[in-house]
Amino acid sequence: MAQAAALAAVKMHSKTPVVDIHTHVYPPSYISLLQSRSSIPYIRSFPPSPDLRLVILKDEDTESTSRGRPVGPDYYDISKKIEFMDIHGIDISVISLANPWLDFLPAETAAQTAASINEEVNVQCQSHPGRLYFFATLPLSAPTSQILSEITNLSTKSHCRGIILGTTGLGKGLDDEELLPVFSALAEAHLPIFLHPHYGLPSSVWGPRASEYGHVLPLSLGFPLETTIAITRLILSGVFERIPELQIILAHSGGTLPFLAGRIESCIQHDAHLKAAGKLNADRKTIWNVLKTNIYLDAVIYDGVGLKAAIDASGGDRVMFGTDHPFFPPLDGETIWASVETNRIAVRETLGDEGMDGVMGGNAVRVLRLG
Amino acid sequence: MAQAAALAAVKMHSKTPVVDIHTHVYPPSYISLLQSRSSIPYIRSFPPSPDLRLVILKDEDTESTSRGRPVGPDYYDISKKIEFMDIHGIDISVISLANPWLDFLPAETAAQTAASINEEVNVQCQSHPGRLYFFATLPLSAPTSQILSEITNLSTKSHCRGIILGTTGLGKGLDDEELLPVFSALAEAHLPIFLHPHYGLPSSVWGPRASEYGHVLPLSLGFPLETTIAITRLILSGVFERIPELQIILAHSGGTLPFLAGRIESCIQHDAHLKAAGKLNADRKTIWNVLKTNIYLDAVIYDGVGLKAAIDASGGDRVMFGTDHPFFPPLDGETIWASVETNRIAVRETLGDEGMDGVMGGNAVRVLRLG
Repeated sequence: MAQAAALAAVKMHSKTPVVDIHTHVYPPSYISLLQSRSSIPYIRSFPPSPDLRLVILKDEDTESTSRGRPVGPDYYDISKKIEFMDIHGIDISVISLANPWLDFLPAETAAQTAASINEEVNVQCQSHPGRLYFFATLPLSAPTSQILSEITNLSTKSHCRGIILGTTGLGKGLDDEELLPVFSALAEAHLPIFLHPHYGLPSSVWGPRASEYGHVLPLSLGFPLETTIAITRLILSGVFERIPELQIILAHSGGTLPFLAGRIESCIQHDAHLKAAGKLNADRKTIWNVLKTNIYLDAVIYDGVGLKAAIDASGGDRVMFGTDHPFFPPLDGETIWASVETNRIAVRETLGDEGMDGVMGGNAVRVLRLG
Repeated sequence: MAQAAALAAVKMHSKTPVVDIHTHVYPPSYISLLQSRSSIPYIRSFPPSPDLRLVILKDEDTESTSRGRPVGPDYYDISKKIEFMDIHGIDISVISLANPWLDFLPAETAAQTAASINEEVNVQCQSHPGRLYFFATLPLSAPTSQILSEITNLSTKSHCRGIILGTTGLGKGLDDEELLPVFSALAEAHLPIFLHPHYGLPSSVWGPRASEYGHVLPLSLGFPLETTIAITRLILSGVFERIPELQIILAHSGGTLPFLAGRIESCIQHDAHLKAAGKLNADRKTIWNVLKTNIYLDAVIYDGVGLKAAIDASGGDRVMFGTDHPFFPPLDGETIWASVETNRIAVRETLGDEGMDGVMGGNAVRVLRLG
């Protein structure tokens, strides 16, 4: 009994930090870059209001919805990130450049811009010891040799713990053979990929009334469906058989991959074309195998139903808390953000006070070598 | 104790029937209709093979995949449906015309064709007492008055228990104001809608390598994502506030609605446009409320992870077993279909032998007034 009490006391004192792995920054130079542009993505004011607004989605760029979103200090002032963390009891944030990253840059300037922004963010992390790490950004529009150079360069960044990646890759999606050297280099450098959506789905699928629904359809469905398609294409391309060490963290709890994994696996097993092509042999990694050995999921899903499915699909040791800050702020300016608390409550209700430490931070500390 | 034993004995004798609510038919006249066509959907042979093949999806109509699928007696011979049911221990099937139903018909012939096919299927059900019921098909390309007439006509069909509906409605999706009279008439007639996908997503989202993956992307992702978009648009349009009695059964366990419900609800609550338009008031039904009062889900999800989420989202009394027969047959001609057993095993492993009766049949008997 004395021993049990002592262990309990140790446990109480060895508090696992709360880690937010899905939280974005717009470093000042990136804000300037967006202000210099007049097509999506861009930042500008819409008179008569003098306020700057950020437009990153096509569906946000119409007169009939509130155009874009306000760009306040939460977007670019790193001290606001720390303040947000303190208010919400977040010990460590793994920050990443917000979408659409550098996808829009011309080939000539991409590498230099990426190197500069990665260094800028690494310095931001260094200036807040123990509080910040980051996922770097790759210059995907640059020649492959320059992408590989930047991956090498990342090993010199003290606070880099992976890279953030969109779904278009070099322009043809993630199942593009030309990306294999990039994936190999990332696996070799032990840098996980944080896969994040941006492009959504063709606007025709939202129908003629879409603008009546504000930004709900592209944000709530376009993003997760885009992620689901991208990761399924990646799995079908055989990348995980060829690069078994590749580690991918999926935004928004995998889009919808945990829910659809059974259907995808069943469709593969029933596909006559895949069978005739010899692709249903024993070497194939099933969707479930990939989910449990190559994939990690954030816990940005806003309810216990989805969170439970994410945990059941990948394992409770592979799901990691996130906030999506600075997106989804309260509409009425509340100090505590409902979008954050909804996710925290989902973790607590699903795993209990005793079981929630791993998802709330322990998994991230282990997987991303924090602290 | 004696009373408990007696109750247990009663329970053992009052075996709940196993009901398949997701199982399709192509009555002979529909097969003839498809054979008369040369554009999708159509049935023809592809020389040198003399075998008839059915092409219902654009992605199936390319030289690079096995084009369409074989059309055997499983598709049109109702005695084969009964044989399939007997082999798989299915007591009752609620059959429905397969997609794309009558969406492709010209306005002039749609009403007559629908009436004729609904009568043909009702007679098929009558010829197998206690084994078959059906979801009818509406002539959606006909004038609204003719659609409403067919709904009235369905009350004369002894074995009709609802209607099957695609996602396009009258051509503009299900959030189309012009569909309100149809939805009202269905709610008044206590006819649930079985909402089923067909059109998938624009093929650009599958990328340049899609054909290498057989039919996997459109079947495993296109279908459920289409359903998710359709039902979300329907919810956002406010139909369930206006017609609170409307009942919708979602194919494939809701597409991905159970997993994404939290995100959709959070995006609604954080949308400045919806708030400014006064659409976030107390009268609004939340996604969760709709899931638990207007929506039923089939259990065609091929794994316990997704099934558990479906049950958690809508309730164990609102989820109903299905097979998707005659689709997803075994590639090697096995007698027992893996696609059926995978779904049955998911129900058993999720709910246990003691708890699975409702999903396997009891819910369908109650909701669809069978037997």
